[in-house]
Amino acid sequence: MQGMSKYVYRFGGGLSDGDASMKNLLGGKGANLAEMAKIGLPVPPGFTITTEVCTYYYQHNESYPDGFRQDVMEGIRHIEKIIGKRFGDADNPLLVSVRSGARVSMPGMMDTILNIGLNDETVRGLVRATGDERFAYDSYRRLVQMYGNVVLEVPRERFEEIISEKKKERGVTADTKLSADDWKEIIARYKELIKEATGRAFPEEPEKQLMGAIGAVFDSWNTRRAKDYRRVNNIPDEWGTAVNVQMMVFGNMGDDCATGVGFTRNPSTGENRIFGEYLKNAQGEDVVAGIRTPQAISIEQKIASGSTLPALEEEFPDIYRELLDVKNILESHYRDVQDFEFTIEKGHLWMLQTRRGKRTALSALKIAVDMAEEGLIDRKTAVLRVQPEQLDQLLHPMIDPSEKVDIIAKGLPASPGAATGKVVFDPDEAEKLAEDGEDVLLVRRETSPDDFHGMVVSKGILTALGGMSSHAAVVARGIGKPCVAGCSAISVDYEKELFTVGDIVVKKFDYVTIDGGTGRVILGKVKTIPAKLSSDFRKFMGWADSFRKMGVRANADTPEDAARAREFGAEGIGLCRTEHMFFEGDRIIAMREMILATSKEERRRALGKVLPYQKQDFVKIFRAMDGLPVIIRTLDPPLHEFLPHNDDEVRELAEKTGIPEEKIKKKLLSMEEANPMLGYRGCRLGIQYPEITEMQAKAIFEATVEVIKEGKKLVPEVMIPLVGFKKELELQRRIVERVAAEVMEETGVKFDYMVGTMIELPRAALTADEIAEVADFFSFGTNDLTQTTLGLSRDDAAKFLPLYLDEKIMMYEPFQVLDQEGVGQLVEMGIERGRKTKPNLEVGICGEHGGEPSSIHFCFKVGMNYVSCSPFRVPIARLAAAHASILAEKSDK
Amino acid sequence: MQGMSKYVYRFGGGLSDGDASMKNLLGGKGANLAEMAKIGLPVPPGFTITTEVCTYYYQHNESYPDGFRQDVMEGIRHIEKIIGKRFGDADNPLLVSVRSGARVSMPGMMDTILNIGLNDETVRGLVRATGDERFAYDSYRRLVQMYGNVVLEVPRERFEEIISEKKKERGVTADTKLSADDWKEIIARYKELIKEATGRAFPEEPEKQLMGAIGAVFDSWNTRRAKDYRRVNNIPDEWGTAVNVQMMVFGNMGDDCATGVGFTRNPSTGENRIFGEYLKNAQGEDVVAGIRTPQAISIEQKIASGSTLPALEEEFPDIYRELLDVKNILESHYRDVQDFEFTIEKGHLWMLQTRRGKRTALSALKIAVDMAEEGLIDRKTAVLRVQPEQLDQLLHPMIDPSEKVDIIAKGLPASPGAATGKVVFDPDEAEKLAEDGEDVLLVRRETSPDDFHGMVVSKGILTALGGMSSHAAVVARGIGKPCVAGCSAISVDYEKELFTVGDIVVKKFDYVTIDGGTGRVILGKVKTIPAKLSSDFRKFMGWADSFRKMGVRANADTPEDAARAREFGAEGIGLCRTEHMFFEGDRIIAMREMILATSKEERRRALGKVLPYQKQDFVKIFRAMDGLPVIIRTLDPPLHEFLPHNDDEVRELAEKTGIPEEKIKKKLLSMEEANPMLGYRGCRLGIQYPEITEMQAKAIFEATVEVIKEGKKLVPEVMIPLVGFKKELELQRRIVERVAAEVMEETGVKFDYMVGTMIELPRAALTADEIAEVADFFSFGTNDLTQTTLGLSRDDAAKFLPLYLDEKIMMYEPFQVLDQEGVGQLVEMGIERGRKTKPNLEVGICGEHGGEPSSIHFCFKVGMNYVSCSPFRVPIARLAAAHASILAEKSDK
Repeated sequence: MQGMSKYVYRFGGGLSDGDASMKNLLGGKGANLAEMAKIGLPVPPGFTITTEVCTYYYQHNESYPDGFRQDVMEGIRHIEKIIGKRFGDADNPLLVSVRSGARVSMPGMMDTILNIGLNDETVRGLVRATGDERFAYDSYRRLVQMYGNVVLEVPRERFEEIISEKKKERGVTADTKLSADDWKEIIARYKELIKEATGRAFPEEPEKQLMGAIGAVFDSWNTRRAKDYRRVNNIPDEWGTAVNVQMMVFGNMGDDCATGVGFTRNPSTGENRIFGEYLKNAQGEDVVAGIRTPQAISIEQKIASGSTLPALEEEFPDIYRELLDVKNILESHYRDVQDFEFTIEKGHLWMLQTRRGKRTALSALKIAVDMAEEGLIDRKTAVLRVQPEQLDQLLHPMIDPSEKVDIIAKGLPASPGAATGKVVFDPDEAEKLAEDGEDVLLVRRETSPDDFHGMVVSKGILTALGGMSSHAAVVARGIGKPCVAGCSAISVDYEKELFTVGDIVVKKFDYVTIDGGTGRVILGKVKTIPAKLSSDFRKFMGWADSFRKMGVRANADTPEDAARAREFGAEGIGLCRTEHMFFEGDRIIAMREMILATSKEERRRALGKVLPYQKQDFVKIFRAMDGLPVIIRTLDPPLHEFLPHNDDEVRELAEKTGIPEEKIKKKLLSMEEANPMLGYRGCRLGIQYPEITEMQAKAIFEATVEVIKEGKKLVPEVMIPLVGFKKELELQRRIVERVAAEVMEETGVKFDYMVGTMIELPRAALTADEIAEVADFFSFGTNDLTQTTLGLSRDDAAKFLPLYLDEKIMMYEPFQVLDQEGVGQLVEMGIERGRKTKPNLEVGICGEHGGEPSSIHFCFKVGMNYVSCSPFRVPIARLAAAHASILAEKSDK
Repeated sequence: MQGMSKYVYRFGGGLSDGDASMKNLLGGKGANLAEMAKIGLPVPPGFTITTEVCTYYYQHNESYPDGFRQDVMEGIRHIEKIIGKRFGDADNPLLVSVRSGARVSMPGMMDTILNIGLNDETVRGLVRATGDERFAYDSYRRLVQMYGNVVLEVPRERFEEIISEKKKERGVTADTKLSADDWKEIIARYKELIKEATGRAFPEEPEKQLMGAIGAVFDSWNTRRAKDYRRVNNIPDEWGTAVNVQMMVFGNMGDDCATGVGFTRNPSTGENRIFGEYLKNAQGEDVVAGIRTPQAISIEQKIASGSTLPALEEEFPDIYRELLDVKNILESHYRDVQDFEFTIEKGHLWMLQTRRGKRTALSALKIAVDMAEEGLIDRKTAVLRVQPEQLDQLLHPMIDPSEKVDIIAKGLPASPGAATGKVVFDPDEAEKLAEDGEDVLLVRRETSPDDFHGMVVSKGILTALGGMSSHAAVVARGIGKPCVAGCSAISVDYEKELFTVGDIVVKKFDYVTIDGGTGRVILGKVKTIPAKLSSDFRKFMGWADSFRKMGVRANADTPEDAARAREFGAEGIGLCRTEHMFFEGDRIIAMREMILATSKEERRRALGKVLPYQKQDFVKIFRAMDGLPVIIRTLDPPLHEFLPHNDDEVRELAEKTGIPEEKIKKKLLSMEEANPMLGYRGCRLGIQYPEITEMQAKAIFEATVEVIKEGKKLVPEVMIPLVGFKKELELQRRIVERVAAEVMEETGVKFDYMVGTMIELPRAALTADEIAEVADFFSFGTNDLTQTTLGLSRDDAAKFLPLYLDEKIMMYEPFQVLDQEGVGQLVEMGIERGRKTKPNLEVGICGEHGGEPSSIHFCFKVGMNYVSCSPFRVPIARLAAAHASILAEKSDK
């Protein structure tokens, strides 16, 4: 591989070949180990094999570049030199761990092998060096087990069976009751198992162990679960993983040992206190696996969680103080919350990892605001610290406190938000049900990476085991799903597909609600209310708005929506659809009369009945938006959508209007379309029936006059949909202008207004220069533009879109995330050409992409004046727009 | 109006302000009058009012620019000076005609007023000057009648009633039997009628008459029939018309007078003989109106047409010789066939008009070939002389000579080709029926411009009256419709909606066939065969091909189509659709099994049954195209199209396959789509079910090997449809390549092949640079590209497209004529970007636009390697492509 400078980057012993900026090459873990070593934190010495080696490995039929093995062994020499032990030394052997470490964390997705360097000979050296035979053989059997499972692919159960057998033989239930001799026997049986299952012996040579472990870690990059995880998290397959080889430190050498994980601030609440969990006399895996219940780090935390176990602050007060120093060093160095792992070996603190702490939306917000106010970061950085999508969690509904809820259990509040769904125990079943549109609540004893696909599709996750750092908790926070973890009161029976809480039996498909903010587990569906937004939230959004340069409007069709949009900070309405205004009550009858009419006069008469209702709707919306712009779109959907859909409705219509049923049915038939999406809709309706546009313009302008008379300010923007030809807009515009003049004449009130168009057909974008001649504004309808540009019906694409995402034909669902490469070209072209004709043309977006952060960045980049999205997504859009401004400013520097 | 140099261009008396190149300004007629005057032909002096004045007129609320009236009167002075008469002179008055004249001829669409200058006073001067009182008053009444009808808008019938009354009073039937005094009385009654109907008197002042007539001609530009004609013929409304004011010459002053029309060569056959018709003692209108049966110009023509009336050659031998000179002057000057009008006034020949002679396809071809061989024009010019669309007439089916046909009458062979249809007498009804998809044959006593809309939609036209130059004949030739004119044996009864021939009664909706090449009228439907192509045709197409630079392929799905395509000169197959190969016989059962299969294996098994059939189809097609390229498209339509469409078919399928009906119905339901056009089709099928692509590739390559083994040459091109993302093509290509390798391996035969894609989605065009990385060729599927770019479903657009054409929102039906402005941009972009990646990328078009001349010009302009169209349109495409090359070369010079 060309340009690969070196394969191995060392750290420890006052030396660091790498640093935190080298994540792409060294992975997140490796880069941070190098950085920690650099800033003087106690890191076990080791080295990192670069991601480039991984790439080489996959490009060269799973082989290594020349000289790689030598470099690895030089890395081992580096550790030996610092620590004074030798790899494979029969007396005092150096043991190492081999861990994966990609650019971004993929928790639990890839493999780890510990205790490498042990064999029948060196284990005796370890006995001698530690004086603890049981520990030494336990360590050895762990290596054989991990190696057998991970490298040699012998199923884990087979190893567990051997331990179970042994425990039965010895009449004990806990691993801890097994003696050194027991472990020796177990090791022998393990080795037999490996021989029998694979036909190969467990490798005794440490170097062979090491190389096998490195290969296994590279291989684990391409397991199904790792690929699934990358797909969901949009991590490119090409990145590859780095491998970290590091001196082993042991948290399980006795009661002066421990292992733990921590956050420099509380990852759920954001509170500025060290937060974490540890297990005495244990290895790191034991904490993450959620098998033993961990202890709190601080006394305060212990009390808050209601734990009865002593805190680290009590059991290891010196180490606790040392950790507080570490917290300060990490935060002032990284200027962000860190998530770290540590091990205490015989009273000595070793830092094994640090990385950016994942956090809930709530805590992200608090941390950002606090750190800015503490002077650790500036406000722009603070704004960038909260991902726009995270706000969704804050805006999600919570359980209505006034609801009488049937709380059946309480677990850990692992990821905030309320979720209601049908209980399902199997992740595959969860996936199936969710595909059918069901709300699913995944209930598991504990979760593992294999359950990921089921977690992603569930509304929430409930587990019986595991703490705040368990797999379930970490993943749920990452994907923003409510989660109650470690709810030990529940007892899960996978066989019978039910869980029990005392006498209560909850069966598959029963409804359960969880509150991830409090840990409550509630029987049945529960009413929820919108979250209350904190003062931190308002402060934070204020900062965001101060940096934001692009406007944010909302799509709102009703006065209620309009009011809500304004509450959420919308600066106008980017899209008010008028179709619903034809549906309520008797209006639909008048609308149907209009469609069935055979003359302009009949149509006008029927439309006349709808006019007052529509006008009143506009009046209310205008009042709510006083002073802010409002874009109203004229009728868009195919007319047949307004017609009756079954015989009963036909009969009713016939009775109410006196039009024969036969005639109605004939009309229905004549209006059927092969491809309604590409059919008789949008401005095509207004071109055929100018009286519809006329009526709508009249309702808009009469409402305008009424609201202006109340002393309010308003410049309505009339938007013509589905324009593909300049002349279409010209003809519709002429009608709107005539009606505006008539209303001014009749009422004696002068008002301003704009007439513009949706750009939602490729042809509109391509001829935007012409269309702009008769448009005061453009609004990109990227839903339809995506459908036409990709030739993809939103209603039908579900059949193959999942396959397309799996096959990486598309990287994103194109109706959620704007296809910048394809559709984006037309958007850019449309803006550029439109502004060539009218330099000050107002341009926005009103497709659903207007509320999606990466699409919002694009909208900013191409120079839109505003984005418009659903009211609930307005804060997300505001923040995303602020990010876009700040990042653009940074990249300009 | 700025930039308008002058309003009036004079001609005659050795002077010409204009010439033939000034058609845009002076109209076709005016420019040619100027030109004829310039080359010394005897043109009555006059002047032309420019089209700019017409434009001014419509832009300024139907008023004239300053100084216009003076200029007109100066034009009159110009005539007076030459001819020695004065306008309004009581003794020897100058009379003038006022005629329209647009850039292109719009036969009979606009108005003409003759004899301007006559009034109660000057008519007496005319009596004195001519010594013919009856003639003078007849001329006067003609003026009053025309003026009353055209300028003052009194219905024509009212005037005709007055004449009828008078004839009844006088007990005569022919106009010619009315005396001077009768005309005087009629004039008086006309004037009363005008006064009564309009409240205004007929203007006696010549100048007022003149200005009124000019205004009326301008107004006639915007009548409904003129607009209709322009819409059908794609003439812009903005062009406007010029007005020609010219000294009157009279063909009706006695038996030494006549009026006629002629062609320098036979417009039906192209034969190099003067050809025309005249009427003795008549005005020009009488010839065109088809009221009297005209006489032939030459004796030869007289004999050929079976006429019993003397020819001009006999009655006016000197004039005949003079006309032969005129023919030579015109042809050697214009180097093309001319269509001219003349009048003989008292033995003096006056040329009233000349213009490019309209001609049938057959004659156009013969004239072009002959003129090139005579040395009048070069071969390139000859090739340009035939419009590609005209070839359609030559290629149209003719009546099978072996058919026993029931000939009920014979008329004039006015426009070649055979047509069968339901007899309809009313043009509106013709339009209605044609909209319902019926074949219509329009039968009229004679046609007038008001019938135009009915003629356009009919398969053919049959008239009882009128000659080869009658309205019906001229228009039918222009629009390429078969026409039998002047079939005097038939008697049309509009009232009873039938026509009779002797005892035979043909009622509305009965089927009749006409043969416009022979004039035969046949009862019932008749079998037709393709036209035999003349040796002229082969010679001509040979010339065209020698200048053509772009390839022409055909869309052909069957071995028969392929053979026909080759006969028509196709240089390969641009699109072989494979869907039909799944429909025949039992294949459809296997295909349905495939769709209903639940595993890859089942699908493979079902597809295996189709493979041998598909392979045999390819073998035959490849054989037929030996040595020429063949593009085969993999399966494209939505799978549900292959499923049973009713209960019977479901039952049959259930029986044949053993799959329960329930399951089939469920599948049917699950495959329903909201917008199939944007749904689960094209390469999306092959991505989901790679085994389909696999089977098709296998069939293609096994067929390739078989044909190569026969010693034939072949490089099959496999085309993947509906690609929007590079990866789609990449995945499909991988399958095709694998199968190709397997087939080579199995058979030991090496072959070349190409893999390419349709560009039929906007996204494909936009990302063509990427797609080209994995494509060997592009073929633009402009049917679908038009649907997606315009957001217009071809199946549904019929509801509003007519309105869109009427409103001039679109200038052409976009599925017939490529939307160059919109869709064309994507085509251009796709080619440019594709070639940026692969400079030698083969690019073609396979949408229906590939057979449409203006679209073919576009394809050439943007650098396509070939166009592909239906076999019947291949010659049209060859000629259009030749035109494109020649014209590009010319514009380069």
